[in-house]
Amino acid sequence: MKTIITGDRPTGKLHLGHYFGSLKNRVEMQYDYDTFILIADVQALTDNFENPDKVSNNVRQLALDYLAAGIDPKHSHIYIQSLIPEVAELTIYFSNLVSLGRLYRNPTTKYEIGQKKDIFGSKGESITYGFLGYPVSQAADITALDGDVVPVGDDQLPHIEQTREIVRKFNHIYGKTFKEPEAYLSSTPRIKGLDGNEKMSKSLNNAIYLADSEEEILKKVMSAVTDPQKIKKDDPANPDVCMVYYYHKLIDNNVESICRECKKGLRGCVACKKELAHALSEYLKPIQERRQYYEQHLDEVDNILKEGTEAARKRAQQVMIRVRQNMKLDYFENSRK
Amino acid sequence: MKTIITGDRPTGKLHLGHYFGSLKNRVEMQYDYDTFILIADVQALTDNFENPDKVSNNVRQLALDYLAAGIDPKHSHIYIQSLIPEVAELTIYFSNLVSLGRLYRNPTTKYEIGQKKDIFGSKGESITYGFLGYPVSQAADITALDGDVVPVGDDQLPHIEQTREIVRKFNHIYGKTFKEPEAYLSSTPRIKGLDGNEKMSKSLNNAIYLADSEEEILKKVMSAVTDPQKIKKDDPANPDVCMVYYYHKLIDNNVESICRECKKGLRGCVACKKELAHALSEYLKPIQERRQYYEQHLDEVDNILKEGTEAARKRAQQVMIRVRQNMKLDYFENSRK
Repeated sequence: MKTIITGDRPTGKLHLGHYFGSLKNRVEMQYDYDTFILIADVQALTDNFENPDKVSNNVRQLALDYLAAGIDPKHSHIYIQSLIPEVAELTIYFSNLVSLGRLYRNPTTKYEIGQKKDIFGSKGESITYGFLGYPVSQAADITALDGDVVPVGDDQLPHIEQTREIVRKFNHIYGKTFKEPEAYLSSTPRIKGLDGNEKMSKSLNNAIYLADSEEEILKKVMSAVTDPQKIKKDDPANPDVCMVYYYHKLIDNNVESICRECKKGLRGCVACKKELAHALSEYLKPIQERRQYYEQHLDEVDNILKEGTEAARKRAQQVMIRVRQNMKLDYFENSRK
Repeated sequence: MKTIITGDRPTGKLHLGHYFGSLKNRVEMQYDYDTFILIADVQALTDNFENPDKVSNNVRQLALDYLAAGIDPKHSHIYIQSLIPEVAELTIYFSNLVSLGRLYRNPTTKYEIGQKKDIFGSKGESITYGFLGYPVSQAADITALDGDVVPVGDDQLPHIEQTREIVRKFNHIYGKTFKEPEAYLSSTPRIKGLDGNEKMSKSLNNAIYLADSEEEILKKVMSAVTDPQKIKKDDPANPDVCMVYYYHKLIDNNVESICRECKKGLRGCVACKKELAHALSEYLKPIQERRQYYEQHLDEVDNILKEGTEAARKRAQQVMIRVRQNMKLDYFENSRK
């Protein structure tokens, strides 16, 4: 059975963007793959090192979101990155195989550095050593567990390419140690926000969270962007530019008739939004029920995290034995050199 | 008792430059300090990642040199860096506290990068991520063991300053966790080479090794630079520009009369060199005898390394408990957050 490595930074609640972008996929794939889901607290700290409470507090919240979304601990291991020191060790060894130039050219990091530059002014001072190197760390996450497949959005593709390069270089220098992981692009890798922005995101304040109540959802959906050409309730409109229709499609709610009615001017936006809010709420109900269950059984959540972390660590320890052997760092394990 | 952290990269045999620059000091200090001596194999790999055998093979050679020089395993712990994974973990957390600009400005790294640039042409491609960050890793070496004092040559001073900065920033963000280590500058931090170069160094081929035989020493000393003004055996000369006199002084061999005779033209260079070779050889005899003993008792060396590594690891584990607590990464150790 092939191994999937995937995960998120514990920096906030998960929303529909996460669910349709990756989580739903993971839930479906967990029965066919050995699934390891990483709570990337170490990586979250590269961006949030001044706010350790935020990272720490979101670790269990993220686990709750995973379990709520249908990640089944019988089929998936949910584990905490900082409790796998082997990943740190491997990151250090990988650091020698990547030039600074290569890291600066990574388009995703480049974009993120560009964002920071806007905020801080001077590039060199705002970018930490740890931030530039997080793709190296990510390569260690994947390879330390012998990952075969990494489900990603398109912005993560450069990091998988970086991982594959590191694997090739490592194998070339130290002998065959790792396999090259494959990226698995989700069919809907990026979910639009309520405001029509290409990306649903907490920081853009355009997200519907998995844990939102029907009331909250209704309030948010009421603010969603619709066809600006439609002025009156019975104007015909173009559903293809309407975020309300976009979410109807996402949860496959009555799509054909909505599209037809909208185009004919037979459907007012307010009614359509109310229908969406209700349908979304129904869609999220089983997710929220599971969340409630686990919120009332936090010891169970802790045990799931402990077991998942133990399983991940066992793998990483096996991999590191191979790494140390091939790097000739197994001083006391073999006969004397 | 205060703790000293010190060490070397295992990349070759130790020579007089190491002995008078640092080793002799360590031997003297080990009775007054809790001494941890690091065989920095991980750091050696930043420069030698393509040559793991070189690093690996020199680990026990370096331990032999230490023991030969008088490092006493009853008073000092000799330990292997790669066997302390806590250092890798700490390096990752420290990486968030150092900007790239700060690392580029480190004068020692800057000099070393300059050297590489000459070789490889393009800076960005020849400098690895791991190389730029080795001062961060060094900060982790020192702090992971709660080091108080670090004996250094002047080229290492910027790294200690970097360590102190990281400690201050870490303590500021996460609460008092580490103490700021102090650099201890050796009185003869840099030993000149046989050719008169400011630094005795393997790569300059101007070194006398601790393990050199009297024959080898004589051959090398015969090539040492003397006063170029002195042509004939009984010309008076200036001992202050003579490397032979420099080494006589280093081992405190009959210095006053040599100086007087040289200045008066009463001392020929060949005789003076022979006297030095013999005196050096006598000086190194107890060192070489100890080396012979340990070469014949390699199991004892392994046990010394294992015990030293265990002692270092125990310390690092204690420190990491504190680090995880203060960074709020101690998920299962306290009551649930």
